[in-house]
Amino acid sequence: MADFYCAYSDALDEGELESWPEFFTEDCLYKVTPRENFEAGLPIALIYCESRNMLVDRVVALRETALFVPRTVRHLTGNIRLRAMEPDGLRLTASFALFHTMVDQRSEVFLCGRYHDRVVEDGGGLRFAERICVYDSTIVPISLVYPV
Amino acid sequence: MADFYCAYSDALDEGELESWPEFFTEDCLYKVTPRENFEAGLPIALIYCESRNMLVDRVVALRETALFVPRTVRHLTGNIRLRAMEPDGLRLTASFALFHTMVDQRSEVFLCGRYHDRVVEDGGGLRFAERICVYDSTIVPISLVYPV
Amino acid sequence: MADFYCAYSDALDEGELESWPEFFTEDCLYKVTPRENFEAGLPIALIYCESRNMLVDRVVALRETALFVPRTVRHLTGNIRLRAMEPDGLRLTASFALFHTMVDQRSEVFLCGRYHDRVVEDGGGLRFAERICVYDSTIVPISLVYPV
Repeated sequence: MADFYCAYSDALDEGELESWPEFFTEDCLYKVTPRENFEAGLPIALIYCESRNMLVDRVVALRETALFVPRTVRHLTGNIRLRAMEPDGLRLTASFALFHTMVDQRSEVFLCGRYHDRVVEDGGGLRFAERICVYDSTIVPISLVYPV
Repeated sequence: MADFYCAYSDALDEGELESWPEFFTEDCLYKVTPRENFEAGLPIALIYCESRNMLVDRVVALRETALFVPRTVRHLTGNIRLRAMEPDGLRLTASFALFHTMVDQRSEVFLCGRYHDRVVEDGGGLRFAERICVYDSTIVPISLVYPV
Repeated sequence: MADFYCAYSDALDEGELESWPEFFTEDCLYKVTPRENFEAGLPIALIYCESRNMLVDRVVALRETALFVPRTVRHLTGNIRLRAMEPDGLRLTASFALFHTMVDQRSEVFLCGRYHDRVVEDGGGLRFAERICVYDSTIVPISLVYPV
């Protein structure tokens, strides 16, 4: 499980965006939402994808955007905890801090928060059936075009 | 042990302050002190609690303060190392980075340092008999009203 | 392996610089290089040491510099992954975030990036035969006089 989480972060940090959708099941749910909304049970999210195909679309969009503002991202993930074993998969949470680096600038924290995941076996390996990325801030970080 | 550390961080990050004292033994020692004092062997600490009851008092005080400056805190803990097995418990150290997020502001690092812990079995689980939080900076971060 | 990585970070974070070269083999390669150069395959590096003796020299130089700008450094290392087992050692990668704290200032991130390591058994324990520290920014952080 730790390996799976590491591989996910590494793929994004290495800029291997095209492999990112492969970490999800075909009918996955991927959401990025502020903590405020998550705790209030509001369905509104900054990013809402309900299939792997929608993730693929995001990668295409990102490749275009990324041309204009080159940046690198670095994930630090910790506190990976199994919360429940359910018939539809394993429920886990993990904390993340994301650092980004723009050309000619210093690295800085741009987002931290918690993953709420459901992981299943699929296609001979592990995949996210659900990854809800709940970030701590109330403002919308412009960098959020990049996967969390 | 990793689970115990994760649970501690999660409780604080989720704002479950009332469960925080439960991570400590009844006659625990909890201190927050700058590295300078720690290395010089000075007993002076910014926060000094020598029982679980004193931690409970802090939570009450914090609940009142928190009403005025809402913030969320995020712990990243790493480098958990067993340093010694002694008759009175396990000695461990771990590094921490704390990020906080204020309303309408970006997340930022506000403290990093090292835990110096003594962990014992108590009440059917693990508890801190001692947790000395040594932070790297020499200034007093105002956010330190929140548990480290 | 996790222990070895933790011990490395701890030695640096505790300021035990003199023990730092001991984490490397006698004919080690230690490089600190921006991601841009690394990905382009450029040999140019900010720091380039090809023996343990050169690391010892750096420590001496650093002790002198450190007198002028006292700072403490804190490593958070994550995503440690075994990439290959080769006849000449284990290939691993890991992500790092480095925080530094100057006197009377708050802690802040000053560098993040990835280690590209080759680890071998040597002298009854593990040692780095190679540690390439690839940092994400394009600018030269002045603090880089300190080992990554």
